[in-house]
Amino acid sequence: MERVFEKRVENLRRKLKENDIDGYLVLYAPNRFYLTGFELFDPQCNESAGCVIVSEKDLWLCTDSRYEEIAKSILDEKSVFIYKKNRLKELREFIKSTGIKNLGFEAGVVTYELYDALRKEISLKPFVKGLVEELRKVKDEKEISAIKRAASLNRKLFETIEGIEVVKYKEKELAWEIEKFFKERDAQGLAFSPIVAAGPNSAIPHHRSSDKKIDKESILLIDSGCRVNDYCSDHTRTFWIGEKKSKKFLELLDIVKEAQQIALNHIKEGIKAKELYNMVVEFFEKYGLSKNFTHSLGHGVGLEVHEEPSLGIQGEEELKENMVITVEPGLYFPGWGGIRWEDMVIVKKDGAEVI
Amino acid sequence: MERVFEKRVENLRRKLKENDIDGYLVLYAPNRFYLTGFELFDPQCNESAGCVIVSEKDLWLCTDSRYEEIAKSILDEKSVFIYKKNRLKELREFIKSTGIKNLGFEAGVVTYELYDALRKEISLKPFVKGLVEELRKVKDEKEISAIKRAASLNRKLFETIEGIEVVKYKEKELAWEIEKFFKERDAQGLAFSPIVAAGPNSAIPHHRSSDKKIDKESILLIDSGCRVNDYCSDHTRTFWIGEKKSKKFLELLDIVKEAQQIALNHIKEGIKAKELYNMVVEFFEKYGLSKNFTHSLGHGVGLEVHEEPSLGIQGEEELKENMVITVEPGLYFPGWGGIRWEDMVIVKKDGAEVI
Repeated sequence: MERVFEKRVENLRRKLKENDIDGYLVLYAPNRFYLTGFELFDPQCNESAGCVIVSEKDLWLCTDSRYEEIAKSILDEKSVFIYKKNRLKELREFIKSTGIKNLGFEAGVVTYELYDALRKEISLKPFVKGLVEELRKVKDEKEISAIKRAASLNRKLFETIEGIEVVKYKEKELAWEIEKFFKERDAQGLAFSPIVAAGPNSAIPHHRSSDKKIDKESILLIDSGCRVNDYCSDHTRTFWIGEKKSKKFLELLDIVKEAQQIALNHIKEGIKAKELYNMVVEFFEKYGLSKNFTHSLGHGVGLEVHEEPSLGIQGEEELKENMVITVEPGLYFPGWGGIRWEDMVIVKKDGAEVI
Repeated sequence: MERVFEKRVENLRRKLKENDIDGYLVLYAPNRFYLTGFELFDPQCNESAGCVIVSEKDLWLCTDSRYEEIAKSILDEKSVFIYKKNRLKELREFIKSTGIKNLGFEAGVVTYELYDALRKEISLKPFVKGLVEELRKVKDEKEISAIKRAASLNRKLFETIEGIEVVKYKEKELAWEIEKFFKERDAQGLAFSPIVAAGPNSAIPHHRSSDKKIDKESILLIDSGCRVNDYCSDHTRTFWIGEKKSKKFLELLDIVKEAQQIALNHIKEGIKAKELYNMVVEFFEKYGLSKNFTHSLGHGVGLEVHEEPSLGIQGEEELKENMVITVEPGLYFPGWGGIRWEDMVIVKKDGAEVI
């Protein structure tokens, strides 16, 4: 295993001690990848490519025969366990054979079925706040460099879009142009399906790009991101297509951008996520608009486009240096449209580096 | 809700009665979509776009504010529940308010965290074999028509690939050409990331397309599928690139194709999945090759590329008319390469329709 992974595993081992467990089951694909480099994605959400078990001294990768060769190219043979006919039973027997006495697990990932199969013979301890998620929040230099490349390519996309004539494109067609833009450059691909929302569709924060055509003199909201060296980017811009920008659009755009600036001005190590959220809500409320801000202010970005910390009403978490987060205030008016403005930020000791 | 969804919900309600429950929680995205048409995909595997609750008389869609507008375009307002600050707690309170007494849930999908939040105040019954998965196995006319279109486009891809010069392409580059081929035609996109495996990489059943170049006089395995009208296709072909086909390649290819033909000859309503699997294993064993066949013989295909039934050693299930499955024997030799040949089949009363 590469040194970077060994270091992460050591960090996790420290957390085992702090939490009074002598083993931890890592099932969630990005967590598994973070610790070992093995498979960032599962084939499907209900089909696991495998799990990692970390004890005080050892690490095992448990997977099926399809991944045997890849697993053994990452770890030595004795650290790879291949389950065959009955995944749950064989996994339970394997875990028993490791001698682990108190096994922590990801409560928000392990299914009832797996939990039920293990609990009868293994002492289990659920972690709602996952231990690996905790480690992943603060990025190292190499991670930040990948995120910066992904962010920079996403910004380049928006510059390019501003320069082209998008009227008469279907939302879907423009989404496909975005995907091609990324793939034909530096990126492995999309970080998520781009949201291309024309006119009133922009009022739907998670709109799925459709056959609707982009009209002249209307709103166009684009929320996109790419993946470079396994790391994601995520920005949103809201444009007015045409020359006759509506007064409402311009006023709301100014308000949203100002809301973002207020948050950016306050980001630094030590501030609580929910303080930022509350600041933006209060600012919108000055205009009687807080009810039109229907989602959180942002989220962490890394191996996943949505990861911790969440910048929502429940964000008790204090920001730390080298967390990477989005700041994305938005205002939505069903039937009319919506405006969202999203940037990515590296949290610094004394401020925010916008990327 | 459209009639097709109402019919599916009625079928599920029949299963509630058979299983002594008066409600069922549908969290798994393809199941949720199958019943309502709401969001085929979650934003991430650890981030739900919502769940459906079906009782003897009612159906509710529970989601967050990002999906409120979409949800209310599918269902009337009183059938949509929007959770806000604390998803788990609000969901629990909502379920309690429905009056459901015994709530079934998907044991292989619901996480420990959700289970733990609900179990304290709601009587829960786990279903390892999901009730909606059960319904999804047999496809209706419209589903089969979508699957046929996806299958036909995938076959067209393989015809096209046979006609082009792929030497010197990187695996990744050819994978991208495949994606473009689909997107620029009938498809919504890929059903899964295409496996383009050159030379020895073909020995890895789930190889991730890499920077390796495709060499002349070597094996090229392509496993790909597209999505048309929400339904998937999945075929594999293994080619020899060049004129000097190796004897080993030709012999093994014949064996794999014959193995497939044996299975195809026996597919019909009533045969058990594992009978087909065992037949193929026995056939390979005649050549001393059964240990080189390291995965199952196939799987159902529909809204997901991998769904029930599984054609593996544990396939107790009897095939039924209008199930759609893959038949994909393969032989793998680490260091040398692998051969897989995969087709899709509609199970008929008296045979197999290859698509």
